[in-house]
Amino acid sequence: MMARPDENSRAQVLALCGGIGGAKLALGLYRTLAPGHLTVAVNTGDDFTHLGLHVSPDIDTVAYTLAGLNDTERGWGLAGESWHFMEALGRLGGETWFQLGDHDLATHVLRTQRLAAGETLSQVTAALAARLGLHGRLLPMSDDPVRTLVDTDEGRLAFQNYFVAQRCRPRVTAISFAGAKEAKVQEDVLALLADGTLAAIVICPSNPYLSVDPMLAIPGLRAALKASPAPVIAVSPIVAGKAVKGPTAKIMEELGLPVSSRAVAEHYGDLLDGFILDDSDAVETARLGVPTVATRTLMETLEDRERLARSVLNFASGLRRHG
Amino acid sequence: MMARPDENSRAQVLALCGGIGGAKLALGLYRTLAPGHLTVAVNTGDDFTHLGLHVSPDIDTVAYTLAGLNDTERGWGLAGESWHFMEALGRLGGETWFQLGDHDLATHVLRTQRLAAGETLSQVTAALAARLGLHGRLLPMSDDPVRTLVDTDEGRLAFQNYFVAQRCRPRVTAISFAGAKEAKVQEDVLALLADGTLAAIVICPSNPYLSVDPMLAIPGLRAALKASPAPVIAVSPIVAGKAVKGPTAKIMEELGLPVSSRAVAEHYGDLLDGFILDDSDAVETARLGVPTVATRTLMETLEDRERLARSVLNFASGLRRHG
Repeated sequence: MMARPDENSRAQVLALCGGIGGAKLALGLYRTLAPGHLTVAVNTGDDFTHLGLHVSPDIDTVAYTLAGLNDTERGWGLAGESWHFMEALGRLGGETWFQLGDHDLATHVLRTQRLAAGETLSQVTAALAARLGLHGRLLPMSDDPVRTLVDTDEGRLAFQNYFVAQRCRPRVTAISFAGAKEAKVQEDVLALLADGTLAAIVICPSNPYLSVDPMLAIPGLRAALKASPAPVIAVSPIVAGKAVKGPTAKIMEELGLPVSSRAVAEHYGDLLDGFILDDSDAVETARLGVPTVATRTLMETLEDRERLARSVLNFASGLRRHG
Repeated sequence: MMARPDENSRAQVLALCGGIGGAKLALGLYRTLAPGHLTVAVNTGDDFTHLGLHVSPDIDTVAYTLAGLNDTERGWGLAGESWHFMEALGRLGGETWFQLGDHDLATHVLRTQRLAAGETLSQVTAALAARLGLHGRLLPMSDDPVRTLVDTDEGRLAFQNYFVAQRCRPRVTAISFAGAKEAKVQEDVLALLADGTLAAIVICPSNPYLSVDPMLAIPGLRAALKASPAPVIAVSPIVAGKAVKGPTAKIMEELGLPVSSRAVAEHYGDLLDGFILDDSDAVETARLGVPTVATRTLMETLEDRERLARSVLNFASGLRRHG
């Protein structure tokens, strides 16, 4: 069936997104949808205060990626970044385990300054997006602090300690989200979910346990996703029994789960109206119990990102018609 | 009379210092005195919070200068500095009127972090000095906030607003030091002033009104300087009726003072046991009423700095013998 790009590109779409992997699809959606039609709600469970600065790694990754400023070779941070601050910090005995580029640092300093002046993270994020020239909306999942904690065989670790300092080496036994139960879902996210014009909700191929679960842990989001008239479609981050990037597969193994797209679909459960997995895993579709598209999900090129985005939008369009 | 460098270089010396001009003599003293024999008490009236960071311009100028890291061509900041953070900040709409280099930024971020963690400015400054490998002591004039305010024909301006943003353009009518009356002199400064082994107190050729007066405005310092057994020697920042650098001459004119070393000596008044002015202004010595050395005070080369430092130390040695 041919896509009808004109129709789909004018749909209002909400993407739930973590960092690097999810941002690839967010970019595809951003480039495929007409300007102003994409809203990305971003995980802030990875946020932390470092050197006195409020760092929001996933918000910045998505913002830089949509703006075309991200470093695609290194895989994170800004292209053309320099590291003079880190060198000087190291000489002065400061903490250097978390790399902050000279350009990136401006984002953290401004964010910290504006938060200290009483702005919400939503306001700060909107200002960042506007300055980067983004025409989509970039929203934190919440303006309240939620912090991902990883229980491991070496004790409980703050997320960045586990992820960056320890390089995901410790064995994960459980994951929790401090503050989630007291947090409120960002209000524009809830408003969009209740909006009848919303055409699709896309759970990007981010780590389900580390990047999407922090969002789902906030009271009311899961119910609002289910209540929304728009279909919820998740894209699996697993390809041929492996994670494309990051610790997803390792964590699934450590949590006693099969490393499969089916396990991801089951994790999201009745939230899903549709599921997209890699065509190499198409054998799994029969037993999923949810409409599933099997297509190439590996996003190596910009064309890959846009093509997958069109698949998502077409899939959603079909689910709406038959919903 | 020949100097006896061995004796003088082993003297304990306290220098009161502002920024760039004063730091030149501080460097001369630092290189002339035996390791560990120089204590520099630095003006913090210029300190301010910028972009949420605690910036201590004079402390950093003195620290960088003594460590040989300062940019002698630009005249301020670190040699080999880069400006990527500022470029990124500008693109994000942040304030760019106060230049913060990428390397310099590490100092401000660490200072802010440590102050927020409860350390005193003295502790933070000592850690910075140690990291830079300095063998002398670097002390803020106080651990309490003192903020220089400049009353001008355009209203009251915070110091950095007057000095950097307005480039000293507005006409000065008065200068005051918010918080000075409630501040306490840094305790090691007071201890050193009461120490019988102190051989000299040097008021460096900093701006008397902007850089030295903030120190003298703190209750007890002036009395402690007078009570100290060590002679107090000021070096004039005026050479041939002009300020070597900065707004000293402009401010003196605006305050209705003659732009002369004599006016500087009279400003310090009975605090002085000795005064050093440029030999081009030697004509003024007769009417000063205080022992005065007329010598070359312009410090263009490193040798100039060391030679002037030796003059100061020899002068102090003579004043002690005849005191």
